[in-house]
Amino acid sequence: MKEQFKNQIIIDGLQYCNWNREIFEDLWRGGLTAVHATLVYWENTEESFKKIDKWNDLFIQHKDIICHAQKTQNIIEAKKNNKVAIIFGFQNSAPIANDIFLLEKFFSKGLRFMQLTYNNQTPLAGGCFEPNDSGVSRFGHAVIEEMNRLGMIVDLSHAGKKTCLDAISLSSKPVAISHANPQFFHKSIRSIDEEVLKNLAKKDGFIGLSLYPLHLKNHGDCTLEDFCSMINQLVDMIGIEHVGIGSDLCKNWPDEIVMWMRNGKWTKKKDYGESTNKDTSWPKQPAWFEKGSDIINIFNGLLKSGMNENDAFKILGSNWLEFMKEHF
Amino acid sequence: MKEQFKNQIIIDGLQYCNWNREIFEDLWRGGLTAVHATLVYWENTEESFKKIDKWNDLFIQHKDIICHAQKTQNIIEAKKNNKVAIIFGFQNSAPIANDIFLLEKFFSKGLRFMQLTYNNQTPLAGGCFEPNDSGVSRFGHAVIEEMNRLGMIVDLSHAGKKTCLDAISLSSKPVAISHANPQFFHKSIRSIDEEVLKNLAKKDGFIGLSLYPLHLKNHGDCTLEDFCSMINQLVDMIGIEHVGIGSDLCKNWPDEIVMWMRNGKWTKKKDYGESTNKDTSWPKQPAWFEKGSDIINIFNGLLKSGMNENDAFKILGSNWLEFMKEHF
Repeated sequence: MKEQFKNQIIIDGLQYCNWNREIFEDLWRGGLTAVHATLVYWENTEESFKKIDKWNDLFIQHKDIICHAQKTQNIIEAKKNNKVAIIFGFQNSAPIANDIFLLEKFFSKGLRFMQLTYNNQTPLAGGCFEPNDSGVSRFGHAVIEEMNRLGMIVDLSHAGKKTCLDAISLSSKPVAISHANPQFFHKSIRSIDEEVLKNLAKKDGFIGLSLYPLHLKNHGDCTLEDFCSMINQLVDMIGIEHVGIGSDLCKNWPDEIVMWMRNGKWTKKKDYGESTNKDTSWPKQPAWFEKGSDIINIFNGLLKSGMNENDAFKILGSNWLEFMKEHF
Repeated sequence: MKEQFKNQIIIDGLQYCNWNREIFEDLWRGGLTAVHATLVYWENTEESFKKIDKWNDLFIQHKDIICHAQKTQNIIEAKKNNKVAIIFGFQNSAPIANDIFLLEKFFSKGLRFMQLTYNNQTPLAGGCFEPNDSGVSRFGHAVIEEMNRLGMIVDLSHAGKKTCLDAISLSSKPVAISHANPQFFHKSIRSIDEEVLKNLAKKDGFIGLSLYPLHLKNHGDCTLEDFCSMINQLVDMIGIEHVGIGSDLCKNWPDEIVMWMRNGKWTKKKDYGESTNKDTSWPKQPAWFEKGSDIINIFNGLLKSGMNENDAFKILGSNWLEFMKEHF
């Protein structure tokens, strides 16, 4: 484990990897305490339950270095036991279809984050790529109440602006945008504008900052200095306690998965999402964030930017832990 | 068979019954040539395929008096063979979830009508009960194109106003509102306003008029005279060729089904839909339309209202047949 992280909680608030021993070992050696792992995007109910079964196999196969977190206490225990805790999340509401009773079934198997939408409209709300964002629907309202009751985090990544504002206002518990960047750093459909950021913070919400190249200023050529300067600017705008990392790191996937993420099964034509050049391969990560353990570079970058060590550790994980304590 | 209907095509553009021999015999004796039958509201993909299997059993069991219509030619053959042709429809898009490829699979099993929404928002569009109707979404647009290609009728019953206007404008083939009444006849969330009616007709669309008590002036006490006078007024407004019957007749169901239709699985609280008195039982049908064969009363009512026989037969079925010819 990285010496600097020895006594610290380090959390990556979103990764989507094709998990294997090599990836788990990198996180483990890198000193990560917990990772929120995406299970599905477009998958239906049955397919999503199968993903959980697959994870339960992984927990057995790699029990020396990973474990399943269903409570924040499990994250603290993982730290003590020198393991990486995995928190389950869905990047869409497709698995629950139109059935509110499925939420508790997924919750009982460990689901702790669910996005209302993934780019497109769902029965719950409007996605960020929709020309007309519905906001939170009748079913969406009922689902948010149920998630609040269960202790499942409402994740607004990939939602439209009206949906974000509605959900922030409707939810009785603070909501998260697990992986996105502010519009002031990089203008894109997926980035979050000032109004949403300020409303989010006012209601004790949380944003995890993304390292996905299409969310970065200058994409894969983004400098660590620019990224850390954005963090400082955001901290000044909404307060440090609302900010963490949600790297959106995608490892070990073939290029076809890029088009799966964008197209799912919803269109017979090709949709290129945020790619302006119709590229269908994985975008190049910045050299200072190519794997989960590279989170140490962000820590060092923050120190170099003038942030004190205590605050840098807040960004790297303890803020996420405090936020999660409100829920589970 | 009713003597007056001997050489005529009589079509009911929507019924939702718990089908049995008695109901089929009533339709058969009543001279019905074809009925568009609702298969599902909130059911998922697998449950919806099972409903089709169940219908295929019914076609075998009652092959002396019913048959399956997949083309308008099948309706004409049914008339010759003295059978009632059944056309499949979904009152929601829940069965296709977020998967455009399922449309062709359901089409190949005979699906010929699909509503984009049932009261609530779907991934495709906004429902009439939503406070904020999204209109047709990105997925909805792709689905309408696919329905147009296959020859499946876009049904806008239970959709919001913006969704109706969007779909009418986007669809390359005429669309239908299989079962609803004009706002000028009875103000309700499910009724259709003048702007939508006029746009629908301008694009060669179709409306089937409903006999569901909550869609009628004075509900179950609606008089046949008032209903027929509404038909005449609508014919004057949008032209006779766009108008038919879609009775929304619901036979042989226990009261629990009323709350299934309203609540599906989307809410843990009770939603009462259009009932203003929180009634959870089936509303009382008008005495002149209690069963499918009572369509003869509408025919006689139209003659009494001054409509000529030829036009009354258009309303009773030949208009629907001409509209369906555009699709299948």
